[in-house]
Amino acid sequence: MAPLRSWFSIPQGSHFSLANIPFGVISTASSTSPRVAVAIGDHALDLEVFAANNGFSALSTIQPHQAVFSEPSLNAFAALGRPIHSVVRKYIQSVLFAQTPYPDVLKNNASLQKQALIPLKDIKAHLPFRIGDYTDFFAGMNHAYNCGVIFRGPQNALQPNYKHLPVGYHGRASSVVPSGTPIRRPNGQILLNPTAEKKTPTFSPCKKLDIELELGAFVCGSNPQGEPIPIDEAEQNLFGVVLMNDWSARDIQAWEYVPLGPFNAKNFSTTISTWVVLADALEPFKVKGLENDAEVLPYLKEKEEKSVYDINLEVDVKTSTGNTTTISKVNAQNLLWSFPQMLAHHTITGCPFNPGDLLGSGTISGATAKEYGSFIEQSQNGKEPIVLSEGEKRTFLEDGDEITIRGVCGNDEEALVGFGECVGRIEPALKLNFN
Amino acid sequence: MAPLRSWFSIPQGSHFSLANIPFGVISTASSTSPRVAVAIGDHALDLEVFAANNGFSALSTIQPHQAVFSEPSLNAFAALGRPIHSVVRKYIQSVLFAQTPYPDVLKNNASLQKQALIPLKDIKAHLPFRIGDYTDFFAGMNHAYNCGVIFRGPQNALQPNYKHLPVGYHGRASSVVPSGTPIRRPNGQILLNPTAEKKTPTFSPCKKLDIELELGAFVCGSNPQGEPIPIDEAEQNLFGVVLMNDWSARDIQAWEYVPLGPFNAKNFSTTISTWVVLADALEPFKVKGLENDAEVLPYLKEKEEKSVYDINLEVDVKTSTGNTTTISKVNAQNLLWSFPQMLAHHTITGCPFNPGDLLGSGTISGATAKEYGSFIEQSQNGKEPIVLSEGEKRTFLEDGDEITIRGVCGNDEEALVGFGECVGRIEPALKLNFN
Repeated sequence: MAPLRSWFSIPQGSHFSLANIPFGVISTASSTSPRVAVAIGDHALDLEVFAANNGFSALSTIQPHQAVFSEPSLNAFAALGRPIHSVVRKYIQSVLFAQTPYPDVLKNNASLQKQALIPLKDIKAHLPFRIGDYTDFFAGMNHAYNCGVIFRGPQNALQPNYKHLPVGYHGRASSVVPSGTPIRRPNGQILLNPTAEKKTPTFSPCKKLDIELELGAFVCGSNPQGEPIPIDEAEQNLFGVVLMNDWSARDIQAWEYVPLGPFNAKNFSTTISTWVVLADALEPFKVKGLENDAEVLPYLKEKEEKSVYDINLEVDVKTSTGNTTTISKVNAQNLLWSFPQMLAHHTITGCPFNPGDLLGSGTISGATAKEYGSFIEQSQNGKEPIVLSEGEKRTFLEDGDEITIRGVCGNDEEALVGFGECVGRIEPALKLNFN
Repeated sequence: MAPLRSWFSIPQGSHFSLANIPFGVISTASSTSPRVAVAIGDHALDLEVFAANNGFSALSTIQPHQAVFSEPSLNAFAALGRPIHSVVRKYIQSVLFAQTPYPDVLKNNASLQKQALIPLKDIKAHLPFRIGDYTDFFAGMNHAYNCGVIFRGPQNALQPNYKHLPVGYHGRASSVVPSGTPIRRPNGQILLNPTAEKKTPTFSPCKKLDIELELGAFVCGSNPQGEPIPIDEAEQNLFGVVLMNDWSARDIQAWEYVPLGPFNAKNFSTTISTWVVLADALEPFKVKGLENDAEVLPYLKEKEEKSVYDINLEVDVKTSTGNTTTISKVNAQNLLWSFPQMLAHHTITGCPFNPGDLLGSGTISGATAKEYGSFIEQSQNGKEPIVLSEGEKRTFLEDGDEITIRGVCGNDEEALVGFGECVGRIEPALKLNFN
């Protein structure tokens, strides 16, 4: 299929082609109230301004709901449901088509173009949702296996439950930040000598600060408390997907996590990309995930075999010397469980969901070291330094390191469905004095 | 000190004496918008109506902020900070004193009394806060020890980290419900034969449904991401305390919790009492918690020795036959860590807090079986049935069982500072069909 052409200039290789139309929340220096927009090429299309200037005049479905575009989050838009998201995305595409059936809306409306199409370099992208609850899963089986080998050896690398349910934990919603937010190295308790008879922790800045290369999925549906979302309906409750970096303090985690799981090791910051790629836009890129050789219980069985995404992910490290190295390239299909399975499992107890709730996939790693999505795997928990360009080395993150995650679907340079970037730079730990 | 007398009739033994003045969110059949109120004796004082009728005319501090009483949650009132909560509580007390300095505000204002003082039996009490994030700790050392003995034996009952940090996990904010909400027994994966070589889970209604007797503390302060709340400032960030029942599916938990902690076992429902007792009202009941024989790191060291509360807690089971048995009586001082310590630990990484965030204490158990705050401890994980009145027995909860938690400070029947009740009744699991 030939890519869709636009009358509007979209650079070759843009993540935000006409095939994409991701949603986000923006503000500008001259208009500081956050509101809803889509990204197209190097621009944001401000949907509050677009709606106020009769941009949706040809789309009667959305007219009663246009106030959602003036909201400071996507929660209200998401709550309208996937059929509406689909119609709005297709309409915006059609307005941008070279041969648009609605030329007067934007193509021939220079005044509205000037008001509503804002260069991305001139906008501030906010957290796209007001996140009610955030759950992080562990569905990247290679990552789970690799970490299991590091901590327990290859015999018991995967726990007995791993292939029967999507293992996950509740995260800290307040700690999710948009791409670009600086990440302060956390302080906490670490055990410098784990093999000593007497376990005495030390207070210290984290010495094993790590990344986790993940996808995040935002929920648009809701379920009453006590009523599960069936697996066959789960996908209809997913709004869209972002890139996620679940910053992790490995040494804090090792000491704290028994028996109730990771806590302070995870709650200081999780970064997400700011443009949410709609589930509809990802539909053509659905593929089969990792093979599960266990007999999965019926409530987790999907009718559709293709339920994860073919997204090419990569991770760059830019050190304070200015050198940048791509340390990982991995495909997002390296998941044992899909987002619909995670949602079906999460709600099987009746756990209630609301629009804006966030699911993290868990770290995505491939089978080889260059496909690992965390430093702990690449450096074998600090034993084998990762070699960067110009001879720099890393076992874990150093102050000043900047991590950039990118993800993109497809290889037609005129029809990419990409996520943009998910960036965070490490700031030194606070120096704390206790008297 | 003689108890404070009111011109308004407050029944002897009321949890809501003049010494208390707890805050909540109410609505009535004739006025269905949830708004802020305090409880006094058998009545709620509707603060929206009180404010609209010049009730706060003598309190200039609160006048610019009176809109907070029309909010459907306490978040905005809480965000005003403890000095304001203190002034408002004292002012309401003074309006209700027998010798009130403001007799025209309410004492001599029959019309306002009629509008603003509503019998508790005529109100619906809502969730008092819009909860951003909910964290559940594990600070009840006797409970931690008892569960450790059940699962690992007495040698390793407490993990090495237990006395060094308040162990906790992030909970599911959306699952917190107000007292009285029915609790549906969850379905999920359980391992019927844990000792079998091959671990194959079964899909089943939970067979080990349990309670956890806890306190919850609501946060009123906030901290910027990356900046801890120092231990000496932690208490000023606590709004007040509620009773909490953290319903737990022990069999689901046993199978799922390695390595990332409890998840579905906890996310179906947590019940809280609806009247939040202000930290100020609890001040006279501060006592020393359990002795910690470990050397605690400086960031967790409290200046004040008395940092937990002397609250007499009890748990009733009412079965579907109508019989009620008090199965547990325990004092809330059975905690190794205080709420200020929990908050200092939670934020030491820079984890951001917002008004309305909720901290659970963890299950509070005393040293003897009649003081245990969960069925798993009382029944030794199902081995020793708990004997109820009329010869009924329980190992875990059965459908139709109703649990009522009560808590009260003090023993002067005219000056009790109580929490009211935290009630939930078990409904049968949903029957789910999978094709």
